[in-house]
Amino acid sequence: MSAPDSASGTVWGIGVGPGDPELLTLKALRLIRAAPVLAYPAPETGDSFARGIAAPHLPGGQTEIAIRMPIGDGAFPKADIYDAAADVIAGHAAAGRDVAVLCEGDPFFYGSFMYLYARLAGRCPVRIVPGVSSLMACADAAGTPLAARNDVLTVIPAPLPEPELRRRLADCEAAAVVKLGRHLGKLKRVLAGLDLVSRTRYVERATLGNERVLPLAGLPEDAAPYFSMLLVHKRGEAWR
Amino acid sequence: MSAPDSASGTVWGIGVGPGDPELLTLKALRLIRAAPVLAYPAPETGDSFARGIAAPHLPGGQTEIAIRMPIGDGAFPKADIYDAAADVIAGHAAAGRDVAVLCEGDPFFYGSFMYLYARLAGRCPVRIVPGVSSLMACADAAGTPLAARNDVLTVIPAPLPEPELRRRLADCEAAAVVKLGRHLGKLKRVLAGLDLVSRTRYVERATLGNERVLPLAGLPEDAAPYFSMLLVHKRGEAWR
Repeated sequence: MSAPDSASGTVWGIGVGPGDPELLTLKALRLIRAAPVLAYPAPETGDSFARGIAAPHLPGGQTEIAIRMPIGDGAFPKADIYDAAADVIAGHAAAGRDVAVLCEGDPFFYGSFMYLYARLAGRCPVRIVPGVSSLMACADAAGTPLAARNDVLTVIPAPLPEPELRRRLADCEAAAVVKLGRHLGKLKRVLAGLDLVSRTRYVERATLGNERVLPLAGLPEDAAPYFSMLLVHKRGEAWR
Repeated sequence: MSAPDSASGTVWGIGVGPGDPELLTLKALRLIRAAPVLAYPAPETGDSFARGIAAPHLPGGQTEIAIRMPIGDGAFPKADIYDAAADVIAGHAAAGRDVAVLCEGDPFFYGSFMYLYARLAGRCPVRIVPGVSSLMACADAAGTPLAARNDVLTVIPAPLPEPELRRRLADCEAAAVVKLGRHLGKLKRVLAGLDLVSRTRYVERATLGNERVLPLAGLPEDAAPYFSMLLVHKRGEAWR
């Protein structure tokens, strides 16, 4: 990384946590309030979830950059959108202004901030503030440890092909299946085939007012919102 | 879970984050300051790391319960120590006092809180507040995403036997090896055998003043402190 200009602003990739605005860290709060410029991912139309988490804490009067992006499975990074956003952000930094990039959960856990990071590191100072991840928030909401003792924990994206999902879940001790969306029906099928349905909990919108936690066996739907997860514990409650 | 007495205090399992006291959440801060009783894990002699993280925020005058425990590999839960601690904590709750149990990182990510949880749930109201996990803090410190796109992320405890470590690391896309300690030399051997040393970063004491981040190839030691981690990315920086 080249040495940044000392007059440059800093780009902060800031984890704002899983949803509850009270799960911001003190550091995130301080930096978000102080930054003259905010940037955040947003859907093509409508509100940004990341901005919504920070909203109760914003002082007003900040310049805002909504990075609007199609969301969903197939929507892997649209390079031109990130290129353009990185240019705007780098321009603010070059002018000496700090930019707080709001990231759902933690910036580097399957987060889109990595695409900005790849474009900005070396052009201006970029620093990361870790946040509470949905991975931990879902386990805490379910009242069940993610992993105990020397268990291997496997985090599995639901869009993977069914044979790979089956292989990974067959070989895990504890697993979290992320990015459920329209893949929930496929996961139900795979888990039933492995006789793991009774070992699986479903968690939706952890830490939000409309949080839902239930055994997978009691879940009628075959599709889930983006902010949902399956937690599988093959050994049951071995930690008791 | 039986319905708790409405006059009972609540036991809060509170993640205090990876080390930087500024990485406490607003919710953790509020609950820790308000609780008349604090409990926390501590070594047999000396200071509690979890209490140290919260220390700058404590108002003073709280009752404190240090749960003193031998630490290290072989030291899986000493049932009698947890039984006794749970009895003391349940006693405070029964008397109507809230108890804040301070947990390093997140309470349910390989955390010892699960052993208290197993003993307290059903006896009194127990609630969890997720915290910033070392898993995310280490990736953020290393400036490298934990997992991208549809990569499977495997979290592997270093005390596992060498053949199992080899098998798991051979089959991973991205991995975090936790609980390094005296197992670092073993991990170096396994990763060298898989030609993955150049794909591995070492992170020690993430977010603390004496944080260290370096390529595994540049690390002379064969033992590591408890608060350290290896991050392996087999595909390199596929997210760029």
